[in-house]
Amino acid sequence: MKDFGIVQKISRPFRANPRLTNILLVVAVSGGGYVAYAQANSDSDLISSSAPDVERKKVVVLGTGWAGTSFLRSLKNSSYDVHVVSPRNYFAFTPLLPSVTCGTVEPRSIVEPIRNIVRKKKIGFQFTEAECLKIDAKEKKVYCRSNLENGEKEFVVDYDYLVISVGANVNTFNTPGVMENCHFLKEVEDAQKIRKTVIECFEKASLPTVSDEEKERILHFAVVGGGPTGVEFAAELHDYVNEDLVKLYPGVKDKVKITLLEAGNHILSMFDKRITEFAEEKFRREGINVKTGAMVTKVDDKQITTKEMKTGEISTMPYGMALWSTGIGTRPFIRDFMNQIGQANRRVLATDEWLRVEGCDKVYALGDCATINQRKVLEDITAIFSKADKDKSGTLTVQEWKEVINDICERYPQVELYLKNMQMRDIVDLLKETKGASATKSVELNIEDFKTALSKVDSQMKMLPATAQVAAQEGAYLASCFNRMEKCEKYPEGPLRFRGEGRHRFHPFRYKHLGQFAPLGGEQTAAQLPVLPGDGVSIGYSSQWLWYSVYASKQVSWRNRGMVISDWVRRFIFGRDSSQI
Amino acid sequence: MKDFGIVQKISRPFRANPRLTNILLVVAVSGGGYVAYAQANSDSDLISSSAPDVERKKVVVLGTGWAGTSFLRSLKNSSYDVHVVSPRNYFAFTPLLPSVTCGTVEPRSIVEPIRNIVRKKKIGFQFTEAECLKIDAKEKKVYCRSNLENGEKEFVVDYDYLVISVGANVNTFNTPGVMENCHFLKEVEDAQKIRKTVIECFEKASLPTVSDEEKERILHFAVVGGGPTGVEFAAELHDYVNEDLVKLYPGVKDKVKITLLEAGNHILSMFDKRITEFAEEKFRREGINVKTGAMVTKVDDKQITTKEMKTGEISTMPYGMALWSTGIGTRPFIRDFMNQIGQANRRVLATDEWLRVEGCDKVYALGDCATINQRKVLEDITAIFSKADKDKSGTLTVQEWKEVINDICERYPQVELYLKNMQMRDIVDLLKETKGASATKSVELNIEDFKTALSKVDSQMKMLPATAQVAAQEGAYLASCFNRMEKCEKYPEGPLRFRGEGRHRFHPFRYKHLGQFAPLGGEQTAAQLPVLPGDGVSIGYSSQWLWYSVYASKQVSWRNRGMVISDWVRRFIFGRDSSQI
Repeated sequence: MKDFGIVQKISRPFRANPRLTNILLVVAVSGGGYVAYAQANSDSDLISSSAPDVERKKVVVLGTGWAGTSFLRSLKNSSYDVHVVSPRNYFAFTPLLPSVTCGTVEPRSIVEPIRNIVRKKKIGFQFTEAECLKIDAKEKKVYCRSNLENGEKEFVVDYDYLVISVGANVNTFNTPGVMENCHFLKEVEDAQKIRKTVIECFEKASLPTVSDEEKERILHFAVVGGGPTGVEFAAELHDYVNEDLVKLYPGVKDKVKITLLEAGNHILSMFDKRITEFAEEKFRREGINVKTGAMVTKVDDKQITTKEMKTGEISTMPYGMALWSTGIGTRPFIRDFMNQIGQANRRVLATDEWLRVEGCDKVYALGDCATINQRKVLEDITAIFSKADKDKSGTLTVQEWKEVINDICERYPQVELYLKNMQMRDIVDLLKETKGASATKSVELNIEDFKTALSKVDSQMKMLPATAQVAAQEGAYLASCFNRMEKCEKYPEGPLRFRGEGRHRFHPFRYKHLGQFAPLGGEQTAAQLPVLPGDGVSIGYSSQWLWYSVYASKQVSWRNRGMVISDWVRRFIFGRDSSQI
Repeated sequence: MKDFGIVQKISRPFRANPRLTNILLVVAVSGGGYVAYAQANSDSDLISSSAPDVERKKVVVLGTGWAGTSFLRSLKNSSYDVHVVSPRNYFAFTPLLPSVTCGTVEPRSIVEPIRNIVRKKKIGFQFTEAECLKIDAKEKKVYCRSNLENGEKEFVVDYDYLVISVGANVNTFNTPGVMENCHFLKEVEDAQKIRKTVIECFEKASLPTVSDEEKERILHFAVVGGGPTGVEFAAELHDYVNEDLVKLYPGVKDKVKITLLEAGNHILSMFDKRITEFAEEKFRREGINVKTGAMVTKVDDKQITTKEMKTGEISTMPYGMALWSTGIGTRPFIRDFMNQIGQANRRVLATDEWLRVEGCDKVYALGDCATINQRKVLEDITAIFSKADKDKSGTLTVQEWKEVINDICERYPQVELYLKNMQMRDIVDLLKETKGASATKSVELNIEDFKTALSKVDSQMKMLPATAQVAAQEGAYLASCFNRMEKCEKYPEGPLRFRGEGRHRFHPFRYKHLGQFAPLGGEQTAAQLPVLPGDGVSIGYSSQWLWYSVYASKQVSWRNRGMVISDWVRRFIFGRDSSQI
């Protein structure tokens, strides 16, 4: 290798095992140059960096869903080498999947190759289309398998940091027959399959050999789960049938039936009551059969068995196509990983508030595959008290209180939530409640008073929902931590460590709920957005336009945006296609 | 049923066996009405027509390709009940399939549901998504099977007229391994699969475990067949790789190779020599490896074996993906049908010039599945002579000649072609050649002279190529015959029947070649169109724009047109997508 004064950037081909010890460092020295050789074994991988730099850390990201992609998009620190491993080489804008099922939007419009998303970033980047089989947190290795060539091509990837963002499986709650007979709506392929199946049902029902009774069965579309996905699919399907298919299948149009099954008492239960009522009323009016309070206990190839939650009554209904849109489950290799790191008893992979997986080092988990295990105030109550009691007097003054309350609120967001929900302005109100109305600023709290004051706040802890919004915010948050890793090492910005010394490096992750939409078909959408005036609820045609603009603006690329908008325009002009491809 | 004077139109649901004897005829009589009952069995199908009509004839159309769809689009006569049976419920604009393989155009943009194409027509129409298994020409029945529900759903369809337009199979010429290892490009699904495979090859080559040699193999794309499809695919792929993929796969871009294999001496041999040369030169310049004079003798899963046509030398080349784009074959059930009707020795199903299948009644075949078996002049020479020799003098005068020459030219188009090719203005020139330069208008021909005069014309007979253009013209021609069936029965418009009495009902089918395009990539196209000034050849950017406008205008619906054009625009702006869906 030539010896030169100007530092050269060599694009380094990644290897399966590019340990960071095997580095040929090209160090620039003003006035002349020399080459520092630091090769630990026979591996001849080259790496160079643009400064007398420390080792480049290798970040392995598993998955290209909302969390992983959001992390990649926000990552700006060029001192990492990022290796993304995912069975899909693209990001999919999943909230539009229900639209894809009926051809309102084309599948290709909502996907973007992950290489394209990262292309213009100045980070070392490699993508491998493979599935993760196993994580070895001790050795910092990930075992992967490529499904591309005739099955078995396994390999190992080392990491310095691991970001797990593999999303979730479907969860059938062990209901027999669901896996075999139901459609799901988690991947683009699922949506494509549903679209094909809907048309197939119409073609089947048009066969000359099919009896009327059979026609009715074939054209009965059952949707299990009254959440936003199920509701939106039912609404889309209803529009598709009534706006497009009835014209082409006039002989069978009267036989079509759509049933929405929900085990709870209402559909869209996570929304405001008015939205639920509006949706149920709209569906009823349009002939979509909403059956609440009924749990699916079995799915055969031609009939669904349900059980009334109240009466226990069992009944069956013949169906042609069923969509299972309820429940999320843990992927098998994540389950193995949880056993390995002592989380065997947990339902979902747990992280702390900084998205670090509990029980191992430098492993992060975000999105649907993980959940943030919020620290309870009562667990730490003694540590908090002693940290706050600066003068070690055994009692807390209001002044001492005020000094730590911000840290407490940041570290334990449930405290802030509790104050807000109890309509207390500040900590003094909490004191007043504890010590009675006579409490004044001079009141001091001992440890027992303190426990009483904070005894109820933990009830405010809530799990974050498994939504794209949460995943995206987590990804962006983690990237911002990675971007400032070194800086925050020196100047920590987080809250006080109540159980340790100093401060936490970063602020903990805080989710900001921006609201939620539920498209109800017929160009009407229900929206529940904090930014809206009043109580944030809006239902109708205007929300549909809001929905259009929000969904268009949230696309990850201009290509997606252009494609999705032009799909909408094409649908307005030409309707939805019904070719069986 | 009520008895009324006004004729009611009842839309009749088709049945598997709606024999035309089971008809409830509602006959309108002025001043009062009565119902004529003509029910032969317990079947209660209803039919009514808008006049004291004859039976409605049932036309069964097999296939929804170019020929079948063109027939349906041109059919205007409302006195038919049309039943279309096809495994695909849509028409696909196949000339754009090579564009679909690389995402220049989306698959859904080039398809249109057949129901939508026929929807606004006033013909009785039914579509069944099924494959034809067997034709029984004696009993006038077609045996079909639906592939929709778990395989075996067989049924029988009766017909009065049968239109066979099922297209062709691929033909591997029994080359071992082709079926298992090659891609084809006949259906939309094929194009989608190719698109996915191209990306898969790039992802495979990017796996960390793959050696450099293996990378080169995986990224070697082989195209077998130097016809327009193969050439266009190679060009599209080259554009896709160089305009889009190199940016996303910088690590492997230098390993990509495209090879075009052709057994003949030149690619695009059906085009003008200049086009061939231009294409070969362009490909060479761009690094597309054109290997002519080499026949593929075997395709293994990782290598292709070829044999030099001249030297017999055998060589092998490793490959990652192969497209087989040469040869068309006969579908098995058509082969069975040919055996049944005495065409066992033929290569392709033969029809006469009116597209009627030889050897059976009221069966028509068009498109790639059939070929027109042109009648030889020499076969009929005696009949022609005696018909022309009106005064039975044993000799033909120029006057007698002139009276029949139009009929001869129409019935035997090779005569006209011969005259044109020999640069003879009219029949007198032919006489002159036969009798020597001294021949004048008074010359008379005996039967031997006549035979001599016409002895060479049969050499002008040519098989029509298996193209979309031929199929579409045949479909439109057949529909025009069906539209005027009754009228032409009374007033035949065709040429004299030389072997029978009177005239043929219709003019025979005559193909009008409108020209052909060969897109060569990089926004350049070769065009050979008779309408172009000079010799009709044009190559370059301007032809590409001609290609865009012709292909846009030829779409079967405004939806297709809008979609295809907007796909082109999207590709110009955003490039082609490389998500592996």
